[in-house]
Amino acid sequence: MKAAILAIGSELVHGEKLDTNSQWMASRLADLGIDTRTFAEVGDDLSEIVDLLRYLGERHSLVIVGGGLGPTQDDLTREALAAIADVPLIEDPASLDAIRALFARRNRDMPERNRIQAQLPAGTEAIPNALGTAPGVWMTALDATSFVALPGVPYEMKAMWDAEVVPRIRQRGWVRSVIVRQIVNLFGLGESEVEGQAMDLTVRGRVPEVGITASDATIAFRITGTGPTEADAHAQIAPTLAIIRERFGPYIVGEAEGIDVQHALLAELERRGLSLALAESCTGGLIAERITSIPGASRSFLGGVVSYSNAVKTSALGVPPDLLATRGAVSPEVAQAMAAGVRDRLGADVGLSVTGIAGPGGGTPEKPVGLVYLGLATASGVVHRELRLGSEQPRSVIQSRAAKHAMNWARQTIQIRDQD
Amino acid sequence: MKAAILAIGSELVHGEKLDTNSQWMASRLADLGIDTRTFAEVGDDLSEIVDLLRYLGERHSLVIVGGGLGPTQDDLTREALAAIADVPLIEDPASLDAIRALFARRNRDMPERNRIQAQLPAGTEAIPNALGTAPGVWMTALDATSFVALPGVPYEMKAMWDAEVVPRIRQRGWVRSVIVRQIVNLFGLGESEVEGQAMDLTVRGRVPEVGITASDATIAFRITGTGPTEADAHAQIAPTLAIIRERFGPYIVGEAEGIDVQHALLAELERRGLSLALAESCTGGLIAERITSIPGASRSFLGGVVSYSNAVKTSALGVPPDLLATRGAVSPEVAQAMAAGVRDRLGADVGLSVTGIAGPGGGTPEKPVGLVYLGLATASGVVHRELRLGSEQPRSVIQSRAAKHAMNWARQTIQIRDQD
Repeated sequence: MKAAILAIGSELVHGEKLDTNSQWMASRLADLGIDTRTFAEVGDDLSEIVDLLRYLGERHSLVIVGGGLGPTQDDLTREALAAIADVPLIEDPASLDAIRALFARRNRDMPERNRIQAQLPAGTEAIPNALGTAPGVWMTALDATSFVALPGVPYEMKAMWDAEVVPRIRQRGWVRSVIVRQIVNLFGLGESEVEGQAMDLTVRGRVPEVGITASDATIAFRITGTGPTEADAHAQIAPTLAIIRERFGPYIVGEAEGIDVQHALLAELERRGLSLALAESCTGGLIAERITSIPGASRSFLGGVVSYSNAVKTSALGVPPDLLATRGAVSPEVAQAMAAGVRDRLGADVGLSVTGIAGPGGGTPEKPVGLVYLGLATASGVVHRELRLGSEQPRSVIQSRAAKHAMNWARQTIQIRDQD
Repeated sequence: MKAAILAIGSELVHGEKLDTNSQWMASRLADLGIDTRTFAEVGDDLSEIVDLLRYLGERHSLVIVGGGLGPTQDDLTREALAAIADVPLIEDPASLDAIRALFARRNRDMPERNRIQAQLPAGTEAIPNALGTAPGVWMTALDATSFVALPGVPYEMKAMWDAEVVPRIRQRGWVRSVIVRQIVNLFGLGESEVEGQAMDLTVRGRVPEVGITASDATIAFRITGTGPTEADAHAQIAPTLAIIRERFGPYIVGEAEGIDVQHALLAELERRGLSLALAESCTGGLIAERITSIPGASRSFLGGVVSYSNAVKTSALGVPPDLLATRGAVSPEVAQAMAAGVRDRLGADVGLSVTGIAGPGGGTPEKPVGLVYLGLATASGVVHRELRLGSEQPRSVIQSRAAKHAMNWARQTIQIRDQD
């Protein structure tokens, strides 16, 4: 089974936007044991789209098409598919109802131009889209090639992939061997340190295969197992997973894609029945945002103060003005006062604070860009930690690293204190 | 002049690595007025590479090939080019000397396997690589199509692009016109509404070309102008830009990539000399995070309170407990009390609040997931606004939309009030 993925949009081939959907779909196809051989991207030009669709359709048995299903004149995927199958476009009543219902739920009438999104090539199957107005299309043409068109909006595409595309692929019996990937995310060690301690696992040809990648200072092991069933693939992975857990335990923050320090901190707080309050200065709400992106965060997270100005550090957190004047806003003393202040004022078990210089301006030789102080207040007292994240780093990197180190340090410190 | 870009490497089509080189090259070609029509990516399979190279070569006059020039058995670009031109591979003495010299500079002998990198299709031109062992190839074949092969290592490719590829493109007289793209970002209108009001601008064949794309509810116009010089291209854009500004003025949030509602709000506050404080519940710090991601935000942004629990709404913002009990945390009254409370406690000119149900849990028939109230407190009083963002939407979308609507509403309301 050979697959190809075609992404449609002039913004892609003009270099204005990066196509990340195709990569995501190829890795999901790989999980099902389906081999993607070719990616292509083409602009909003009907004859070029048709030409490329035909080329890919003649050489692959599954062609996934991303984008071009919107309501505008630039959206040409429906027309291109109809041209490939040599059939007219006809209105699909069920899709039209779904589009109308979506607008109704938002208390709006469907604009007339969205009606075009219910036009599908005759004889094809609509793929329902619960999150947007563009239904997908499943079409068989060109000597039994399956063409599967999905919207370009990533969260709509991903939801449709899981709910609609994968079941249809399984139903057709295309999944012969199963690939399972197990991720283990670590934080607090450098990529080369991790690599040095895992040389035996990453050697070429070892089964299961183990890869290491780094993203925003989180290091991920990816263990890839294969087998006739999912259980077999998991069994192949299990011993390697045990070795990694044994060797890197204290640094492990999660064992699935996207599970990171915020999840680990929240889990640790919940396990111990502790509530958290935040006092953020240079991270500007980033820690709160990451924690509250997790459903159910309210079980442990009370809230926080973004104390961007010194006046707010005093009025909302009770940091003494003379401490700010004598030690400066970026100092161990102010970090501690912020943590203690937010713990006290918000009535939390744990107060966590961050104050630092995110840049690009504001650095001095004594207090360079990248200097950050963390504070942690609990029932057993107040502690601080200094970070030096590098004056050459961009603002966004310093903010993100400071947030991650703060959450990871809080998690580890809570663990240790509880064991005392 | 139509161009295509082909990236070679199985790690790309297996979804393990994202192809960012092609985007970079397409945007550099656009700067030279050369229109990239198609991207393709293919794995390390000789017949598939040759097939795709021929497809692209027959339809474009310039085909850039990235990757596959290394010394391993997987590196097939040299062979594929030779097959397209139907010529043998022969050793290029100058390239071999350059590879040897590179190793010599690192005090090493050239490993025998690197010798293969000096093998080029007969009759083609080597493109020197100052930073690595893989020379590029400039080949003319298939009725005057130029094939330009460059290594996949980004910093080698980019250095060769500037030093070697651009001068050859200019020398051949291919740079006839310059392309300039102007972006105009809008927020607060749906994509189909914008499209409906811009039909005259987006018609096919109009000069300059106007495209519309949507990303996280921000709608972007992209106007593409061409001319013999940059000034001419800008002049071609100007009347269309004026029409868009005239027609969509109140909705315009920025005129460059990535400039969105947070930049527009911050600019509006600075223009009027107003300070801002935030009270965030369901957005959990997201607004503060987006505002503080902008360097210099501290000129207008004092800080905020993330009042995730009801207790914090009372202790940190002064929301009366009986208001929370009788109206509920997600209500117009509480939104107003939060805005007024944060304005007062943090001493800001403007207090902006958000309270709502981000889901996936917590919704009721009366107060469904996606129901959000915004509050805005200024010297002229306190107002609120209701949003219904759709109970079917994922948590991250509801949080992001609520944040964007809040910032946009605050910006517009401040503008109107000032005009009163």
